[in-house]
Formats: sequence, structure tokens, C-alpha cells
Amino acid sequence: MADQYARSGEENGAAAIPAIRWDEPPEGPVLALLDQRRLPAEEVELVCTDAPALVDAIRTLAVRGAPLLGIAGAYGVALAAARGFDVDEAAAALAGARPTAVNLAVGVRRAQAAYRAAFADGGDLRQAAEAALTAARALHREDAEASARMARHGLELLDELLPGGGHRLLTHCNTGALVSGGEGTAFAVALAAHRAGRLRRLWVDETRPLLQGARLTAYEAARNGMAYTLLTDNAAGSLFAAGEVDAVLIGADRIAADGSVANKVGSYPLAVLARYHHVPFIVVAPVTTVDPETPDGASIEVEQRPGHEVTEFTAPQVQVAGAEAGGGIPVAPLGTQAYNPAFDVTPPELVTAIVTEEGVASPVTADSLAALCDRSRQVTI
Amino acid sequence: MADQYARSGEENGAAAIPAIRWDEPPEGPVLALLDQRRLPAEEVELVCTDAPALVDAIRTLAVRGAPLLGIAGAYGVALAAARGFDVDEAAAALAGARPTAVNLAVGVRRAQAAYRAAFADGGDLRQAAEAALTAARALHREDAEASARMARHGLELLDELLPGGGHRLLTHCNTGALVSGGEGTAFAVALAAHRAGRLRRLWVDETRPLLQGARLTAYEAARNGMAYTLLTDNAAGSLFAAGEVDAVLIGADRIAADGSVANKVGSYPLAVLARYHHVPFIVVAPVTTVDPETPDGASIEVEQRPGHEVTEFTAPQVQVAGAEAGGGIPVAPLGTQAYNPAFDVTPPELVTAIVTEEGVASPVTADSLAALCDRSRQVTI
Repeated sequence: MADQYARSGEENGAAAIPAIRWDEPPEGPVLALLDQRRLPAEEVELVCTDAPALVDAIRTLAVRGAPLLGIAGAYGVALAAARGFDVDEAAAALAGARPTAVNLAVGVRRAQAAYRAAFADGGDLRQAAEAALTAARALHREDAEASARMARHGLELLDELLPGGGHRLLTHCNTGALVSGGEGTAFAVALAAHRAGRLRRLWVDETRPLLQGARLTAYEAARNGMAYTLLTDNAAGSLFAAGEVDAVLIGADRIAADGSVANKVGSYPLAVLARYHHVPFIVVAPVTTVDPETPDGASIEVEQRPGHEVTEFTAPQVQVAGAEAGGGIPVAPLGTQAYNPAFDVTPPELVTAIVTEEGVASPVTADSLAALCDRSRQVTI
Repeated sequence: MADQYARSGEENGAAAIPAIRWDEPPEGPVLALLDQRRLPAEEVELVCTDAPALVDAIRTLAVRGAPLLGIAGAYGVALAAARGFDVDEAAAALAGARPTAVNLAVGVRRAQAAYRAAFADGGDLRQAAEAALTAARALHREDAEASARMARHGLELLDELLPGGGHRLLTHCNTGALVSGGEGTAFAVALAAHRAGRLRRLWVDETRPLLQGARLTAYEAARNGMAYTLLTDNAAGSLFAAGEVDAVLIGADRIAADGSVANKVGSYPLAVLARYHHVPFIVVAPVTTVDPETPDGASIEVEQRPGHEVTEFTAPQVQVAGAEAGGGIPVAPLGTQAYNPAFDVTPPELVTAIVTEEGVASPVTADSLAALCDRSRQVTI
């Protein structure tokens, strides 16, 4: 079950409402999400009291972004446990809510493992639920720390690649505080450059069909006082041709063992443009995004989303009488078929560097990536 | 002045309402345009009784597309003449209504020249106005014939480049009967392939920000019974990567003497993707699109359009109370700045062929283009 609480956003900070928070009101524990479908028009919390509500929130993109999905998945398991639902059933539903995002399943498994381990150690239901929540909170905290480390490594890389400063960075989709327990991935690097006085401009791809760039990245850039300009995804080519892009910074939803990067559809064309124009193409993602069990790009399952995201326009403010499948305003003739992959896959040879919290893989190879993952494992153990 | 007449669209044909028609009701001559801003939801004619109304229709994209703009411009001069307005003033306003579209100015000049020549030959106002109208009608008819010839040349080229048939063609923006006195440019080639039973699929880029692909090309494809699929512009990369695109077909708004092609923003990224994937990138345009006075791509003036086209969503069905600049629904935070070039420029080295009514330039060089233009001049003289 989900309820919506409207909270007035404070205008003076970047994170008036956190993207995700665990709360324990008298009615029982809840997971409160900033409903990202309604940004930037409204800042509304979506309050989930069980895993099915969270699964629905994940599927409909009320909560999204690889690292944040991992945190949400872990809290979702903790929520099911604390509310006395079947934890394994909840975990399976949560892990499968979006097929491409590997972090989601990783987060779910981590809380589930903590829950099971507490039982195995002789704990009761309450103690096992507590263990799941502790695991979710640890993941949340680690993610915030990882954001900070990615930002530091990414800024160092930018300064190395672009010694002149005055960076003009192009980004796609949304990769900031709205996708993370901290300040995000690619956006966190741009924000670090801004704070260091070295960001000349953030070019924000609007990111069709769901406009995460226009709605969310522009919102975060505005809140942080960054110099930013919005553009349609297909106008990026003109910026490259005019020499107005110094580097591309994107996140990742899944990285295969060979360094192939699955990210929001539209990332691959940017990689091809960047290569053609000799501009660095930089992926910023936590090491949990690397999936050693996915050997290469061809093995990445790409989620196909409903066509009505393309054939109709929807916005929180839109109320359409007699609406179609997606409840929006049709922009194409009725009955139009749409091709709507959520992600595309960029091969490692087009990626200049992958920045993680453990350091930078460049050139991107199976070995350089594996080395970062090993470092992460050593730290964790 | 412009009035709007709603006419019920017939469902059984591709051109229930023509994109443009000259009419002479008892109240005096008018130029009736199918209002393309309201497609596909409504088929409404916009009736212009003077040049300022037509200038407004051109600026707001009620009428658009390079060849059709030339025809509209010529009829606009004829309208000013027939209604007794200052013809030179009307011609200047019409020719400057959109800076990048060379055909517009060419069409205007042609009717204006006919008007002046009639005077020079001793004609009176009525005869001069008649001469301008005859020139506009000739341009209209020639454009329809040119469409048919481009379609034939284009299909021959496709069959030569892709001998297997079963063409899967990707197109951008709208280049069919809605931009032409005939069946269009790039779209006419796809339509010819469809009629010849050799079109497997037409991939239709939605073409942000104004969605001419989703609204207009999908409309024309549906009316013609073609197999088509709509996609966001940034999903084209996934199609190329999957080997699902056999050729790209686009139109042109202006072609420089060196073969640089100005076309709807998003064309250049497709050209780079096509090159990277060894897919033919074919431009289809009448020879009037070639501007010998523009030496190269850098000399092409690219129109920058208002940011609200990107930061707001508008549709004919949308009525927004207290609306912003563009009268639409904001999709980005208020105050967001947008970069919104109408066109981009593709250099000749990325263009496989330019198909005109006079034949095909391939490889695209200043010489091969000049040869086609010479052939056209010989035919006209």
C-alpha cells in the first residue's frame, strides 16, 4: 500500500526532501520516497507500507536510478520483514521489478542475506528484521560515501584530461541525489567541478521519453546553483560539432565484465558522437554496477518499455478525459506502434574511462575493471 | 488575417485535405493551409487572406517543410498582388519569415519576378497579379513532378545499394505530402519502396522538440498503410547497433555548394551513427534546395528557436491556465534556459548520396552537385 503525503519543498537547499527515507511512525515502519514522477512540478512523498507498493513505485519510476534502486530494494526487504510479510517472496518480487538494473537485485540480496543470517544465528523474527534494516542502512551509508569518492576520482580525472579547466560537460538522464544515497554518480562529478569553480556549463540532455534530464537533472542543477542549459537529445550533435562539449559524463545501470555499459537509451549515440569528435566519454558508477556474471554487452538483457511512453505525453499536471493506455495526451496517431528500449549498450572501446568509488578503469578492459572490483571486495572483507 | 475552417478528414486516402490550396471564394482569393500544428488530432484548414497571416503561419510552423514553404511563399506573393497589397513589402516579409529555408526565398522571388515582368511588359495590376499566380501554380505543379522524379531516382538508388530488398529505412522529421506540392522528398522514396513491395519497415524518429515525426510522418505513414514504428530520436542508436537499419533517408532545408546539408536538428547525429555502422545516409531534396551562394556548411545560418519549445510541452488539445511563454505544460523547472537550434549541418563526407529530381550526386562533391544544378537550369531554360 502506498499513500502520498505532500510536503512543501524548501527552496534553499539541494535536498529539501530526501530521495528515500526509512521512518517509524506509530502505525508501523514505512519507506518514504520522493515521488520522482511528479518533479519538478510537485514535491510529494510516496509512502510505502509493503513490498508490492514499492515494486509498483519501482516499475512506474517513482523511484529510479541504479544505486537508489539498490537501497530501495534493501529497505523493501527490511520493510517486509518488519511488517511480518514473507521475506523471500518480497525479495523475489523486488529483485525482478526491473530486469536491467543489477544494483536492485544486489541490494535485495544483501538485506535478505542479513535476514537469513540472523535466523541462522538463532535470532527471532524481530532480530532478523532488525538485521535486514541494519544491512539496508549500511548500504545507504556506503552509497553516500561511494558518491563522495566517485566525485573526487571523477574530478581528478577531468582535471587530468582537461587541464585548462572551465569544463563544459554533457550529461544524459539523471544521476544525482535523486538516484543515490548521496549525491549520485555522474552528476556528483559535475557538482564537484561546480563547487571547485571549474564547471563552465552543464549541458543537460532532456532524455526522452520520460524527460529525466529536463525534469530531474535540471531540477538538481537549479537547486545547486549550477550553470546549466537544457537541450533535446538530438541537439547534442550540434554542440559536439561546434566544439562546445569537453567531456560526456553518464551513469550506468549495468556494466558487463568486459566493460560494456548499459545505460539510459541515448547513451550509445553520445558515445559514438564523442568518439567521432575526440571527446572523452566517461562513465561514473559504483562497483556494484559491474556484474561479473554478465560477460559482455550481448548478454545484457535490455528492458523494453511500453510504447505509450513514446506515443503519449504525460505529466503530473495533465488530466485527460477518456485517456488512452498511458493516461496521457496522444502525440502520434492512435494505434501507432513504438520501439521503446529503456537502455542501450555502449561497447568498452567507446568508453574513455569508468570511474568508481575504488578508482578509475582506463583504458576500460576486463582486467582493469576486475582490479577495481577486487579492491572493493578486499575493503568489504 | 487567418480564419480556421474545420473539415472532416476522409479516412480512406493519404491526402484528404491538401497541404496547401489556392481558392477563390466570393469574398476574394485565399490561401488555405492544412494547419500542421494540430495534426494528428485534428484536420483543420487555416485560411490566409493576406501575407502577414501567412508569415505568422510560417513562423509558427502551421505550414513547414522546404519545398512547401517555397510554394507557400510564391502563393503569398500572388495573394498580396490579388488583394492589392504592396507586393515588394509582402515578398520581403515572406522571404525572411524563416532564415534557413532557402526554398522559401526562391519561391517568393519567382512569383515576384513574374509580377514585375508583367508590369515591365506593359501589364496592369490585374495582369501582374495573374502572372504571379501563374508562377506560383507552375512552381506547385513542378514540385509535384519533382517529387515523383525524386521518388523514382531514390528507389533506384536503394535497390542498387541494397539489392536484397526488404528495406528497413530510418527517417527523421517529416518529408512527405505535408511538405510538398507532391508526395515529398525522403518520404516519397520510402512510399515508392512501399508501393513496390520492397519496404520492410519505416523507422520514424519522433523528432524533438516539435515531434514532426510522431505527429506528421506517423500520420502520413498510417494513411498510406505503410509498416512503420515510432521511436525517440535517441533510440536510433540501438537500432543501428542491432543491425536493424538498412539506410537513412532524410530531407534538407538547405544544401551548400560543397554538399553540406542543413536539415532538422538530429540529422547530423544520424549521419555520424550511419557512418560508424557503415549504413548509407541518403539526402533527398529538389535542386532548389542547393544554394550556390552558400559555399560551405560554416556559412549556413542556423535558426535558433525559442527555448520554450524544449522546456514546455504543447499540443492542440492542451489548455493550460496561467500558461508560460509557450502556452504549454512546463516539463523543466521554471527559468530553465534551453539550447534549441532548428537545424544542424552534416558535412558532405558523411552523406552517401544526394537524390534530386535531376538525378543522384554520389559521391557528394561540389562538382557532382553543380552538374545536377546545371542540368536543372538547362531543362528550365
